[in-house]
Amino acid sequence: MALGEFELIARYFARESARADVRLGIGDDAAILDTRADRKLVVAVDTIVEGVHFLPNTAAADIGYRALAVNLSDIAAMGAEPSWFTLSLSLPNSDEAWIEGFSAGLFELAHAHDVALVGGDTVKGPLVVTVQIAGWVEADRWLTRSGARAGDAVMVSGTPGDAAGGLATLQRSLATTASVERLRRRFLRPTPRVALGRTLRMIATAAMDISDGLLTDLDKLCAASGCGAEIDIEALPLSADLTSTFDATACIEYALAGGDDYELLFAIPERHVPELQQLGCTRIGVVTEGGGVVCRRGGRVFHAPRRGYDHFDKDRPQ
Amino acid sequence: MALGEFELIARYFARESARADVRLGIGDDAAILDTRADRKLVVAVDTIVEGVHFLPNTAAADIGYRALAVNLSDIAAMGAEPSWFTLSLSLPNSDEAWIEGFSAGLFELAHAHDVALVGGDTVKGPLVVTVQIAGWVEADRWLTRSGARAGDAVMVSGTPGDAAGGLATLQRSLATTASVERLRRRFLRPTPRVALGRTLRMIATAAMDISDGLLTDLDKLCAASGCGAEIDIEALPLSADLTSTFDATACIEYALAGGDDYELLFAIPERHVPELQQLGCTRIGVVTEGGGVVCRRGGRVFHAPRRGYDHFDKDRPQ
Repeated sequence: MALGEFELIARYFARESARADVRLGIGDDAAILDTRADRKLVVAVDTIVEGVHFLPNTAAADIGYRALAVNLSDIAAMGAEPSWFTLSLSLPNSDEAWIEGFSAGLFELAHAHDVALVGGDTVKGPLVVTVQIAGWVEADRWLTRSGARAGDAVMVSGTPGDAAGGLATLQRSLATTASVERLRRRFLRPTPRVALGRTLRMIATAAMDISDGLLTDLDKLCAASGCGAEIDIEALPLSADLTSTFDATACIEYALAGGDDYELLFAIPERHVPELQQLGCTRIGVVTEGGGVVCRRGGRVFHAPRRGYDHFDKDRPQ
Repeated sequence: MALGEFELIARYFARESARADVRLGIGDDAAILDTRADRKLVVAVDTIVEGVHFLPNTAAADIGYRALAVNLSDIAAMGAEPSWFTLSLSLPNSDEAWIEGFSAGLFELAHAHDVALVGGDTVKGPLVVTVQIAGWVEADRWLTRSGARAGDAVMVSGTPGDAAGGLATLQRSLATTASVERLRRRFLRPTPRVALGRTLRMIATAAMDISDGLLTDLDKLCAASGCGAEIDIEALPLSADLTSTFDATACIEYALAGGDDYELLFAIPERHVPELQQLGCTRIGVVTEGGGVVCRRGGRVFHAPRRGYDHFDKDRPQ
């Protein structure tokens, strides 16, 4: 039997929060929240659309997880701690099993980061999910894209390219090996690097998360900082799962332009490189005075086949 | 020529804000905002979808206005002051004239209420617009749906039913008279009652805005307050524009069940009724101990043909 909008909200989304700073949660016209006098409020929003950000027939739990993960990643990129989020869910119909799965994936990640759902809107429409997230950062310093300085190291967390590789294994119907399974999980369940962002807050000069692709995102960081960068293709931290599944050309393309990694990309003074290496980050290049983002391989300029993703780029791959 | 996502954002949405509390606005992974130690943060989210919340071919400026108006109305219903909002825009294509119109309607209302756009996401997809809004309310008291007490007067602002009437004039292709024009404007450009909400903050016992229809929304207020209500059909403040355009039966249905009014519906001790009447509000009934929401006309129980709108109600009118 079809559930009404209000029953849906009550059954799957109006969960009690353990957070003491939520004075009034879901169920009124708005939420009422305590603030922290010694912190700045950090706010981000991200939308995911079926067929654009996830494939049709993606499991509902993976969609719920992803909608929150991409927002947590923005909070991570500011060096902040997440606290609350709101959810807008446009759905073609009230398929209860789908909604149950969606909320399970969403709350699995929410609980892991102690973030509370404090408001939402459920409407009938095409499958579009928007999460807005809020968090807190110390008033003295936060991470932006705009502080990189020539001579800083360019570093990245994790193994970029895995998410694009995972997507490709789905699109190309590859048989499920252990590596393929892990790549798919990296695409379907990206890990927001919140703890790393907190570590970077006082030491990185600039940071952002990789959503559209390493090169296009680095272009943005450099533009915001008024600098350039040189990237060493041979330093890219490709995972064994990726290199055992795709050839070298594809691996490099996925790492440079694939997007969806939700790893952190940052600039940091050279002296801090060793401690970040200990945390699973890799030095992939250096910030330069200008000249855009240049890739090199064995000393020679390397021309990337594509740089990243733009939703309204008329030449984008469909 | 098609604009890219990032050019779009820069050209039409990344406007400078006059608000001193926006430390970092659009253009990074998240916004950084000052908080107010003596206030609570108020957060709401609303989504509008083409064909559900607005007709296809609605002017882009009206869609932009509406997306923000429905959120400002939630802030009004809490007795709060709005401050910032984020925008998620899922668009089929980057039609620059459409985006220019949309942003003009959006910022017209934003400037009128001194609210700043601090973050956004623009994605390719079906036309779905989500705004999340934040505001501030004094820490000692805010409006909820849950404080109504038996004996309180039930009041409503403005002339509910006009918005549904305006929609009906569009759906039924009525000729444009001055009244029809005003009804359409009431539907297309609802006025969020922010100043009224601020006035009600210390004196109303419960409040909410009318988005789904007066009766269904009053049901929610009564359920949250653990009370009932009696409404006097003959007290409904029908506008002359509405009664000159539709017959009495239709006018009552639009006023009781039409939705989209974004007026405030509230319970208030009888002694405050005269001052609210001065502000354009009307006493339409009384809060009772229980028994749900009952309508009366000339003393007899009046059965409303329908009560309001539920997005996933399988019997809803298409």
